[in-house]
Amino acid sequence: MEVVQVLCMKGGNGDTSYAQNSVLQKKVISLTKPITDEAISNLCCNNFPARLCIADLGCSSGPNTLFAVLEFVTTVDKVGKKMGRQLPEIQVFLNDLPGNDFNTIFKSLPTFQNDLQKTMGAGAESCFVTGVPGSFYGRLFLGKSLHFVHSSYSLQWLSQVPRGLESNKGNIYMASSSPPSVLKAYYEQFQTDFSMFLRCRSEELLEGGSMVLTFLGRRSEDPSSKECCYIWELLAVALNDMVAEGLVEEEKIDSFNIPQYTPSPAEVKCEVEKEGSFTINRLEVSEVNWNAYHGEFCPSDAHEDGGYNVAKLMRAVAEPLLVSHFGDGIIEEVFSRYQKIVADRMSREKTEFVNVTVSMTKRG
Amino acid sequence: MEVVQVLCMKGGNGDTSYAQNSVLQKKVISLTKPITDEAISNLCCNNFPARLCIADLGCSSGPNTLFAVLEFVTTVDKVGKKMGRQLPEIQVFLNDLPGNDFNTIFKSLPTFQNDLQKTMGAGAESCFVTGVPGSFYGRLFLGKSLHFVHSSYSLQWLSQVPRGLESNKGNIYMASSSPPSVLKAYYEQFQTDFSMFLRCRSEELLEGGSMVLTFLGRRSEDPSSKECCYIWELLAVALNDMVAEGLVEEEKIDSFNIPQYTPSPAEVKCEVEKEGSFTINRLEVSEVNWNAYHGEFCPSDAHEDGGYNVAKLMRAVAEPLLVSHFGDGIIEEVFSRYQKIVADRMSREKTEFVNVTVSMTKRG
Repeated sequence: MEVVQVLCMKGGNGDTSYAQNSVLQKKVISLTKPITDEAISNLCCNNFPARLCIADLGCSSGPNTLFAVLEFVTTVDKVGKKMGRQLPEIQVFLNDLPGNDFNTIFKSLPTFQNDLQKTMGAGAESCFVTGVPGSFYGRLFLGKSLHFVHSSYSLQWLSQVPRGLESNKGNIYMASSSPPSVLKAYYEQFQTDFSMFLRCRSEELLEGGSMVLTFLGRRSEDPSSKECCYIWELLAVALNDMVAEGLVEEEKIDSFNIPQYTPSPAEVKCEVEKEGSFTINRLEVSEVNWNAYHGEFCPSDAHEDGGYNVAKLMRAVAEPLLVSHFGDGIIEEVFSRYQKIVADRMSREKTEFVNVTVSMTKRG
Repeated sequence: MEVVQVLCMKGGNGDTSYAQNSVLQKKVISLTKPITDEAISNLCCNNFPARLCIADLGCSSGPNTLFAVLEFVTTVDKVGKKMGRQLPEIQVFLNDLPGNDFNTIFKSLPTFQNDLQKTMGAGAESCFVTGVPGSFYGRLFLGKSLHFVHSSYSLQWLSQVPRGLESNKGNIYMASSSPPSVLKAYYEQFQTDFSMFLRCRSEELLEGGSMVLTFLGRRSEDPSSKECCYIWELLAVALNDMVAEGLVEEEKIDSFNIPQYTPSPAEVKCEVEKEGSFTINRLEVSEVNWNAYHGEFCPSDAHEDGGYNVAKLMRAVAEPLLVSHFGDGIIEEVFSRYQKIVADRMSREKTEFVNVTVSMTKRG
């Protein structure tokens, strides 16, 4: 199984949105389903509510955005039926950055309502979906208004490129050759952002409310570990090759850095404990293959080429960032080279993303 | 002052949205401001809340969508300051049909937050804006969750074209030549829709919560009265001229009807009393000139031509409806003719829209 979060910065106008690859997004939902189900079940079993407010943060916009919601609501319905209770009224808040394509989500709502009706019958009418534009590194909801918060493959995106990366020359992310000051700058930005996230959510969640978060992360305590940095290092290889050939200016690469941090379970735990409002119930790590179609049905021959798939996936992630820094002239060439480099490495090494999932409950 | 509600049915794909002419929309907000201010003041004075949930139904998407919200929040802030209270946390729900352009609203949110900050200072951060796609002729929100509901120039749009209009030949709306069965079908659709609207809102509003609704309406008890039907009759004149010249098929006009009903104050009152959940505080009628720029600064010479302005306004309203029924081949010709007909009538007659505004409170 393979997942990745895609930050889509729409070229030129400065709008940004979290956008997830839809093939992978469905896998993420399946991957975290047991943990999400457990959290929702506990929530409902303790005190089955007459109304339930659920938020999905960094919901993106794709065919599977509402699939996640369908899973949540179905779980509530199942637990309710087991307890002989009626489905509560459910308010679903779908959050992403203001540049996200909410129109597409909203246009698919009638289909979602139909699917819900088929699964649950009449109770489907009691599910109200709303869109909440804004950064989750700030307040988004009324105080003490939420029962459950979910976020998948969004929280590894930082609120900004960390300051103080001037010495990260030749790299575009943390790498084995990055000086310690660069690793420190990245880690401090993660701490600032994630602690702000926790503080905001602790104000918005009701006592006993819960939260399931999945990060693109790592097992190792080394933030420049290959397991999380290699995929970016290979992109840097492609860019540096182009520098050597005079196709890209060296200083352009020196000033380009990816605003991402893939934390270890210990780092996640540390911030949660420091903030102090939440009790951790589960903290788990899983792996997924870089290739989206690994072990899946391939819709075309092209998809059997792992290099092609990974380059395509990473292009969706990185193109908007690259375009806004380098212009769009280099894109085809960069990803053509990247595809070959990735294909070569995949044929010789184990290439997987690491996921860190944490489930926690708001303290009284 | 002149206002009109625009129903925009995006050609072909069946998506619909309420969309208001922005020049007029700002006028509507000013027109209803004293009534809205009074409703919000009463709400806050009786029991200044720690949190406030406000919904704008049929919010459309234009530069003034958030202007209305700014007015509401500013009023709450003023009342709070007078009472020596802090601004409550405010949840704003912006509702329109799923085809509405919510992306444009959401992208303008940072500007809105800046404006709010300038007006109110730090409290601005406690205002949370969300988008709610769906028809207001059904449930949109959790039960007993709203303090204040606002809707301007949306409620005259029916949920559908009434059935039983086969005998409305040569007309496209209620007209003096419409048979009684047509007037009855239109009225019954209005009763069905508005009573459903009231029932849904009565479930969603808290006890003591209030609602300010402005309809495009009429003073007369005759639903085929010139004051509300004339503007559509002139469009029918243009279409029938084209039938006479063989440019449009007669049967096409016979089967085309505008899904609108512009109620009298008595009709509004009657439905509110029948439903029984609300006490009417104010029920007022006002007029606005057909010409959007009447008494206003005209940005270009063209705008000094009332016929041009009204044709443009009505084209924004009617084009999507006409295109989906007649195809897009006739549009230029219809509105070119309509502009001349309207200009001629405006030079000889008083041409105004009538607005009906009702302010009411949810009973205990």
